[in-house]
Amino acid sequence: MQFETIQLNEKRNVTLTVMAQDIGGEFRGVTARPAVLILPGGGYMFCSDREAEPVAMPYLKAGFQAFILRYSTGEHGHWPNPLEDYEQAMALIHARAEEWHVIPDQIAVIGFSAGGHLAGAAATMSVNRPNAAILGYAVLRADTAAEIGVTIPGIAELVDEKTCPCFLFATRTDSVVPIQNTLDMLNALNRAQTSFECHIYGYGPHGYSTGDPSLLGSGVMIPDRAQDWVDDSIVWLRDLFGVFGADGQAEPVCRAHVTDDAEAWLSLDCSVSRIFGNAEAQRMLTDLIAVMREKIVPFAPGMSFEEMMQAMSRMTLRQVLSERRIETDRFHELDEALRRIPNI
Amino acid sequence: MQFETIQLNEKRNVTLTVMAQDIGGEFRGVTARPAVLILPGGGYMFCSDREAEPVAMPYLKAGFQAFILRYSTGEHGHWPNPLEDYEQAMALIHARAEEWHVIPDQIAVIGFSAGGHLAGAAATMSVNRPNAAILGYAVLRADTAAEIGVTIPGIAELVDEKTCPCFLFATRTDSVVPIQNTLDMLNALNRAQTSFECHIYGYGPHGYSTGDPSLLGSGVMIPDRAQDWVDDSIVWLRDLFGVFGADGQAEPVCRAHVTDDAEAWLSLDCSVSRIFGNAEAQRMLTDLIAVMREKIVPFAPGMSFEEMMQAMSRMTLRQVLSERRIETDRFHELDEALRRIPNI
Amino acid sequence: MQFETIQLNEKRNVTLTVMAQDIGGEFRGVTARPAVLILPGGGYMFCSDREAEPVAMPYLKAGFQAFILRYSTGEHGHWPNPLEDYEQAMALIHARAEEWHVIPDQIAVIGFSAGGHLAGAAATMSVNRPNAAILGYAVLRADTAAEIGVTIPGIAELVDEKTCPCFLFATRTDSVVPIQNTLDMLNALNRAQTSFECHIYGYGPHGYSTGDPSLLGSGVMIPDRAQDWVDDSIVWLRDLFGVFGADGQAEPVCRAHVTDDAEAWLSLDCSVSRIFGNAEAQRMLTDLIAVMREKIVPFAPGMSFEEMMQAMSRMTLRQVLSERRIETDRFHELDEALRRIPNI
Amino acid sequence: MQFETIQLNEKRNVTLTVMAQDIGGEFRGVTARPAVLILPGGGYMFCSDREAEPVAMPYLKAGFQAFILRYSTGEHGHWPNPLEDYEQAMALIHARAEEWHVIPDQIAVIGFSAGGHLAGAAATMSVNRPNAAILGYAVLRADTAAEIGVTIPGIAELVDEKTCPCFLFATRTDSVVPIQNTLDMLNALNRAQTSFECHIYGYGPHGYSTGDPSLLGSGVMIPDRAQDWVDDSIVWLRDLFGVFGADGQAEPVCRAHVTDDAEAWLSLDCSVSRIFGNAEAQRMLTDLIAVMREKIVPFAPGMSFEEMMQAMSRMTLRQVLSERRIETDRFHELDEALRRIPNI
Repeated sequence: MQFETIQLNEKRNVTLTVMAQDIGGEFRGVTARPAVLILPGGGYMFCSDREAEPVAMPYLKAGFQAFILRYSTGEHGHWPNPLEDYEQAMALIHARAEEWHVIPDQIAVIGFSAGGHLAGAAATMSVNRPNAAILGYAVLRADTAAEIGVTIPGIAELVDEKTCPCFLFATRTDSVVPIQNTLDMLNALNRAQTSFECHIYGYGPHGYSTGDPSLLGSGVMIPDRAQDWVDDSIVWLRDLFGVFGADGQAEPVCRAHVTDDAEAWLSLDCSVSRIFGNAEAQRMLTDLIAVMREKIVPFAPGMSFEEMMQAMSRMTLRQVLSERRIETDRFHELDEALRRIPNI
Repeated sequence: MQFETIQLNEKRNVTLTVMAQDIGGEFRGVTARPAVLILPGGGYMFCSDREAEPVAMPYLKAGFQAFILRYSTGEHGHWPNPLEDYEQAMALIHARAEEWHVIPDQIAVIGFSAGGHLAGAAATMSVNRPNAAILGYAVLRADTAAEIGVTIPGIAELVDEKTCPCFLFATRTDSVVPIQNTLDMLNALNRAQTSFECHIYGYGPHGYSTGDPSLLGSGVMIPDRAQDWVDDSIVWLRDLFGVFGADGQAEPVCRAHVTDDAEAWLSLDCSVSRIFGNAEAQRMLTDLIAVMREKIVPFAPGMSFEEMMQAMSRMTLRQVLSERRIETDRFHELDEALRRIPNI
Repeated sequence: MQFETIQLNEKRNVTLTVMAQDIGGEFRGVTARPAVLILPGGGYMFCSDREAEPVAMPYLKAGFQAFILRYSTGEHGHWPNPLEDYEQAMALIHARAEEWHVIPDQIAVIGFSAGGHLAGAAATMSVNRPNAAILGYAVLRADTAAEIGVTIPGIAELVDEKTCPCFLFATRTDSVVPIQNTLDMLNALNRAQTSFECHIYGYGPHGYSTGDPSLLGSGVMIPDRAQDWVDDSIVWLRDLFGVFGADGQAEPVCRAHVTDDAEAWLSLDCSVSRIFGNAEAQRMLTDLIAVMREKIVPFAPGMSFEEMMQAMSRMTLRQVLSERRIETDRFHELDEALRRIPNI
Repeated sequence: MQFETIQLNEKRNVTLTVMAQDIGGEFRGVTARPAVLILPGGGYMFCSDREAEPVAMPYLKAGFQAFILRYSTGEHGHWPNPLEDYEQAMALIHARAEEWHVIPDQIAVIGFSAGGHLAGAAATMSVNRPNAAILGYAVLRADTAAEIGVTIPGIAELVDEKTCPCFLFATRTDSVVPIQNTLDMLNALNRAQTSFECHIYGYGPHGYSTGDPSLLGSGVMIPDRAQDWVDDSIVWLRDLFGVFGADGQAEPVCRAHVTDDAEAWLSLDCSVSRIFGNAEAQRMLTDLIAVMREKIVPFAPGMSFEEMMQAMSRMTLRQVLSERRIETDRFHELDEALRRIPNI
């Protein structure tokens, strides 16, 4: 395992800590690993040690590589310094991906509080985009950003269809970063049809990191389940990237967008209404429709096939076929055929 | 244990299933139990068995009483029939609380899909209000309600400060009830300063109930963690109601509102800014402020006490004192004193 | 859902409580269910309500049917009355399996303390054998049985290869039933090559049932994880019986015996040493051995194929082929071929 | 965080990897940390990387320091070389405890397979004893040790009352190290009245480390719950050492021995029978007995106080008073008084 701390910017005291696990040998089948880049919080005044190394550990346990960026803070913490630091760090990880055994298109950022603001900026406005973002009790609104002295637009309003999938968590009673920050981001991600997962725990303080007792005082009121975001986020990353192990990497089970309806060509991941609303697709799928008509059991007594199609109109065709176990061995072939039809 | 099914409305085929556990005897210390009233989904066309008895079981295991309302559906399913059924059921539970060993002010509704719409209506517009609501992939927007033929305002716009705490869960890719339903409700609850918890899982189908494999087909794609809402909601109810066991019931650890700032009198659960912005409170708490000044360690180097107070201005005074372990044995006394000061 | 309590023996006050969930309808694919028969503890002096209905609930949630036998206790509690009651109850469940939607060869007993003694007797000496047994802080030794007035041999010494798979749990500091009871049973099950799972939690009291807080006093010292036996036992039963859901029932992943080495004919579930020590099998598998020689990567550098076979000699051939991903699509064919060779 | 690899023995290629987290600063209240020393497996032929760094991570996350000893193997692997390496490593950790922020009497060993044999030797026959031992699918019997070429007695027969508390886990179907190894150790620990916890999962291969998917092939059959040993062992260590966090360290909740009955003086942790069988103690506790007589509710109707005392005779007096909530604020005083009475 490689462990080193690289100075990225001496004047601004910016460092990148690298924790890169081995490949090959007994890790047979593992030739490179997905990675996380951790952005600690601290109000752009400092970088919290409680949101740095302790956060890296569970991802390392899960086989990921981990990097910690201690970005510009305090007198150097004004925007866009921290974002520049992020760009530099991510560019370096890409440049040295082979040496550090990193899969270049499987890198997630994890940011907390102000670091969550930076992670959100990475997800929405950076040049070196991450492939997923985990945003912990993050500053995402312009007004809250202004409170910590960041004078850019809020992150939520920057979300578009190029924004990566996001995993958000916070406590409902966070008294430092109001929960509306997280809610605004959810609304924006939904508008962009982007994948997300979100856990808002009923109560608890701001800045609780992993929630491990070793990081908290005994008087801190927080439910045990507020620690679940750690393991949940790991499995969510596996959902997005594909589980990897001694036999290589499996297919992802969760996609970056809810449907492919905004793409230029059709696919099995377009919605039923989009596909069957397309005349060419309808012609091509005549046989499949016949099979579906036969195999799809209505949700309620007396429902017709057309009503069922209506009820499932927002599902992707892949979901319909998968759940109803129809022609599942022809997925690749069907997808290929649809991808030759313009999505008009 | 009592188990019976009561016909509430023969014509509309409305029934209440009662599952009431014993008290006393070996359940020493348990003299009555909190309860859940389950409202299955089914688009107001039917009541799904998959969201009925199987849902009751984990709450029964946790010591709750469980009731299942099979409300008006199909030809009788038009509004406000289902809400009337709810009122009748809740009134009956209150009337027979002693017989069924129910704590009358600790009754939660649990609704799924259309049943989640009904649970949301119970939480916002009913006469017989529940004390908490668990809303599973619930219909909460007017446009989605219209799709299933309910022509009332959406639930989200009805939320006010009298709305009970809510626990919401859904999958991000729900293709029947769009996730915006849940997001609208979160926004509304936040505006009302109401307690909530929310889990939106990265992907999965609509209508998955508890997510137990016995309820799903093997082709259904859904992450294991999407089952966590069940146990999470149980602990959340204990957070709100207080853990109960052989020694009686403990104090709640989560309150119905984030702060008491909207109340007529001050309390330890008002925000720091509210309390210290009140001249009378400031005078009364002179000694406490001196202690705080001494004991509160700043978040960052160079922070003054006033900056710390500013940083904690949205916390309740109880939280500040509890986390910093200041005068924790005087909580009751301090609270009493504050409750004699008008919140102006 | 059917719920009824049947009097099995009026004089001895023996009852069977039936909790049978529906099939068909929305539980599509579910035509019958596995079941648990719960035997509460109470030192053969009474049947504890804390180890009765509350225990049934999680299994019902998981789709099982649940039965509770309140067997003979007190003045009627002398042996073999309770075992007779068990036989009567199990015979009745078999007789009415269709009516109660029970899969007759997927019935587990769950017993606690003295009820664990009875469950152990069911597993080892009954006529109507269960298909699995869950033994909670169970009395399994003759000397402990004598303390509660049961004058039969201990259960552990009755274990033989016909004993069903067992799941055992207890706390290490149980001061009523010493942990040696559980240890003796493990030793006996291992000698018989029988499947088992065991969880002994570091500390905690006797008689804690599911460990749910509603059943315990607040002064009771017990780790949270001591509740895990409930969910673990459910998944273990699914491992043994096969997961069931809307598409029917999957293959089991755990077998009743560690290997088939004691069977009359060979199979893929015999150990490597047993199979390759059989001349006829060796001849038949010449081609497979060639494939294995090529595909099996040694555990350590410099290991020969023969040394690898030696290192894996206690594995079943199915395990070797599965883990090394060799000819996995020929499992059924290979198994059939081996089953034609006498195990001599 | 300090990360370094120290060569302990160049000739035998023995190294100690140090992963030492910071103290103070934001880790306020943490002045030193408990630690784990990891002993990977590999049949004394090599040290498995899969049982090294990936195992350290969860303990680091939980606030522990982590050390990995790559001990003598292969041509240098003959006994007692590995034990000498262990002694050297543990002595070094003690010598540099301050520099590495380690609490010297809170160091656990974690060993897997052959490394579990070494960890067992550390627990039973070393000079520099650990304070707890986690033994994963460990070689603990003489006959299995002989198979991997270690010609010392098995570990189980070396257990005595000086052996530290042990946490054992394995899979029931381990085909490399038979489960009897673990069972023998449990029997020995019980005879010595030593604390232990044990999890034997229903099926799964040898050598599965943490069970994280990144370490396993996709064809490996193992239940998800077989990963639970990691988190369970962390909480178990906290039970033994006391939870630590920003306010320092709490009292342990689990003791190294089940009772203090083998000690020279009485204490609150002696069994009820031991204490009330001592005439001097009985005299001293006259008042307490009167209170107990009044407050102790019998387990069953008609039980006398004397029968209750008999039923609780193996409980420690601390447990009885704690569970029944009797005089819990006088524990320290009562304990002090008992500690002045010889245990005869």
